[in-house]
Amino acid sequence: MKIIKTTSSEFQNEFNEILSRGKMDIENVEGIVKNIINEVKNEGNEALFRHISKFDKWEPKTDKDLEISKDEMKKAYENLDEKLKKALHLAYDRIKAYHEKQLPKTWLTFEDNGTILGQKVTPVDSAGVYVPGGKAFYPSSLLMNVIPAIVAGVKEIVVTTPVIENKPNELLLAALYICGMPKTFKVGGASAIAAMAYGTENIPKVDVITGPGNIFVATAKKLVYGEVNIDMIAGPSEIGIIADNTAKPNYMAIDLLSQAEHDEMASSILITDSEDLAYKTREEVYRFLEELERKEIAGKSIEERGAIIITKSIDEAIELMNEIAPEHLEIVTANPFDLLPKIKHAGAIFLGENTPEPIGDYIAGPNHTLPTGGTAKFYSPLNVEIFMKKSSIISFSKEAIKQMGEDCAILAHTEGLTAHEKSVLERLK
Amino acid sequence: MKIIKTTSSEFQNEFNEILSRGKMDIENVEGIVKNIINEVKNEGNEALFRHISKFDKWEPKTDKDLEISKDEMKKAYENLDEKLKKALHLAYDRIKAYHEKQLPKTWLTFEDNGTILGQKVTPVDSAGVYVPGGKAFYPSSLLMNVIPAIVAGVKEIVVTTPVIENKPNELLLAALYICGMPKTFKVGGASAIAAMAYGTENIPKVDVITGPGNIFVATAKKLVYGEVNIDMIAGPSEIGIIADNTAKPNYMAIDLLSQAEHDEMASSILITDSEDLAYKTREEVYRFLEELERKEIAGKSIEERGAIIITKSIDEAIELMNEIAPEHLEIVTANPFDLLPKIKHAGAIFLGENTPEPIGDYIAGPNHTLPTGGTAKFYSPLNVEIFMKKSSIISFSKEAIKQMGEDCAILAHTEGLTAHEKSVLERLK
Repeated sequence: MKIIKTTSSEFQNEFNEILSRGKMDIENVEGIVKNIINEVKNEGNEALFRHISKFDKWEPKTDKDLEISKDEMKKAYENLDEKLKKALHLAYDRIKAYHEKQLPKTWLTFEDNGTILGQKVTPVDSAGVYVPGGKAFYPSSLLMNVIPAIVAGVKEIVVTTPVIENKPNELLLAALYICGMPKTFKVGGASAIAAMAYGTENIPKVDVITGPGNIFVATAKKLVYGEVNIDMIAGPSEIGIIADNTAKPNYMAIDLLSQAEHDEMASSILITDSEDLAYKTREEVYRFLEELERKEIAGKSIEERGAIIITKSIDEAIELMNEIAPEHLEIVTANPFDLLPKIKHAGAIFLGENTPEPIGDYIAGPNHTLPTGGTAKFYSPLNVEIFMKKSSIISFSKEAIKQMGEDCAILAHTEGLTAHEKSVLERLK
Repeated sequence: MKIIKTTSSEFQNEFNEILSRGKMDIENVEGIVKNIINEVKNEGNEALFRHISKFDKWEPKTDKDLEISKDEMKKAYENLDEKLKKALHLAYDRIKAYHEKQLPKTWLTFEDNGTILGQKVTPVDSAGVYVPGGKAFYPSSLLMNVIPAIVAGVKEIVVTTPVIENKPNELLLAALYICGMPKTFKVGGASAIAAMAYGTENIPKVDVITGPGNIFVATAKKLVYGEVNIDMIAGPSEIGIIADNTAKPNYMAIDLLSQAEHDEMASSILITDSEDLAYKTREEVYRFLEELERKEIAGKSIEERGAIIITKSIDEAIELMNEIAPEHLEIVTANPFDLLPKIKHAGAIFLGENTPEPIGDYIAGPNHTLPTGGTAKFYSPLNVEIFMKKSSIISFSKEAIKQMGEDCAILAHTEGLTAHEKSVLERLK
């Protein structure tokens, strides 16, 4: 794992590499994905049957074959290990409580002349959640996408996930039960995104599609954007840590590795003003690495895309981190809250040594679907608002239009829109 | 202008046509737009010079030639007609006041075990606003896009607009002055979107691009989505009106025409339970049409894409309108506020006979950039939040992680992520 000082002549090159970590080559797969989408759009379930046979290794025959039954979900839930059941319920309850605090409210304001202005908030009618599947199914992904839609008040929630060899993961089934058994279809990849964007014989067309996925899923989401809304286009996972000499090297090391184990393309960056912490953390990284189940992946990620940067000060560390705009940011310094005003760009901010990033992945409550690759500069964590939209409310009284109508008519006239002008003047007669 | 009853056998066909009004053929121009974007990305201003020479009929020679000077803005403002100046200031002040009410707040919550959760709101660093230009420049577009960015607290706001023959519109210059003279570049179309998405020698790369435009601009925005955030992909303008027998036919007619005059592709739909209103409104439409400057456009739009629908009840009218999800919705009934709970999808809602849609285009305060083509089912009006983003805040105490750490570790273990598991267990030692 490389250690670089900001004073080194090679620093800027190394740092530029970190900044460009998020580049995805959508161009390469765009053609394939367009074909998949068009097939689903034109042929519906017939196309899905073909794609499932090819990628998921089983042969659906009827529309009904694509659905997961509620009985299966219930049975899996009942057979679930008690400790795991308790943990999933705790996660569900805390995620729900946090997202309820995000709910925007309809508001109205009044003016003395009788003008009423406001903003009405309503849920979308239907939402589609994509859950990556196969062997590496993450129940937390299901919870993190479905719960905000439930809290937003979405009436129809649809889930799609690939089911290899038509053998649904027991944990998936149990997690679906806990989520209130949304309509779930055994379809994966770009086909699933297309099915939810355009609808098929039994998969409903939805208004919003969310959920993580590989580059095919990400590309499909970008292509259907506009036809439906989407949450964001997410890339590999990443963590940035700002730490001073009060941080414990073993904590820093295992936290870096917890991102590295996700994906060879994951990025794990520690920025510190303590040279001592930098070197000790690296030692701990190699010690922990030996103990990991996903040692190969984590090792490759940490060597190729990990880095420890030594700065002259914590302020310099913050500056660099704002440029990186990491998905996850840990602040492990003597007084982490003091740094919060200066943190501008990060998906989620974890404060203090007792807040390791994985706490946010499962149990804390905030969403774990976060902007990656520097897009925290303009995207927010997945939240209830993607499942809601606003309408402006405008009500003018006779008095109000008398007061402001002429100004409005002048502007319309200036823009050459005489019907606009007349529409106002007609009320002033 | 056609009048259809919902009881007619042809109704469903006619209605389906209205529902599919928003289809844009992005595919047709995608290749051209991709080339334009790649040229700007690879060659910077050199490419812009070529595109301007081709489309805008003048020859910029240096980077500086692309910029509009603050002196020009100031001079145009000082020469502005006093009535127009007053109207623009009124619009500016009211738009600002409304958008200030939208500002989301950072919040924190506390639990007895020492857990702190929250959501931090910050503006993006930079925003780019596209303003369609040439002869049909709309100062209101500039105000409606720049003011929310100012209110959000965006430090760097960039404006791009095509300037035909290098002769900037005096009104554009004056409106730029009123908006605080943002950095403005004389670049239009897909080239302008590419310049703001990737940056050039003197045009900064921004985080968010907003603003209306033709199909080239819309396609460019979709293509750069993900590299930057965008507001939405907007199509032709539209109005839906729900009215009962208390509505005045002349008001209804001129309000329908005020959308029709925008664009031959605009849609103007009145839905009413009053047969009398339907026929009288049509008469008034033809009477007003003769008086309009943009008679040709409005006439073609109203014939081909306008409709009056007669329903059995106001409830049926609301149901249909929710399916249409219009950009602008007027409710002109005896008690318009009573219908508000049932209105699910609309960009902006105008209540009562004294609130013609043009009031919202200029002076009321809410944004006039609204979702079109039925996308009000999932998009919101342009608002301050597109210029802001959120970061989750998580802080666990020693006590909190002791309480919840094990549940978290079990979930991580179940997902096969042992570094995640260890990261939590390390804190429980």
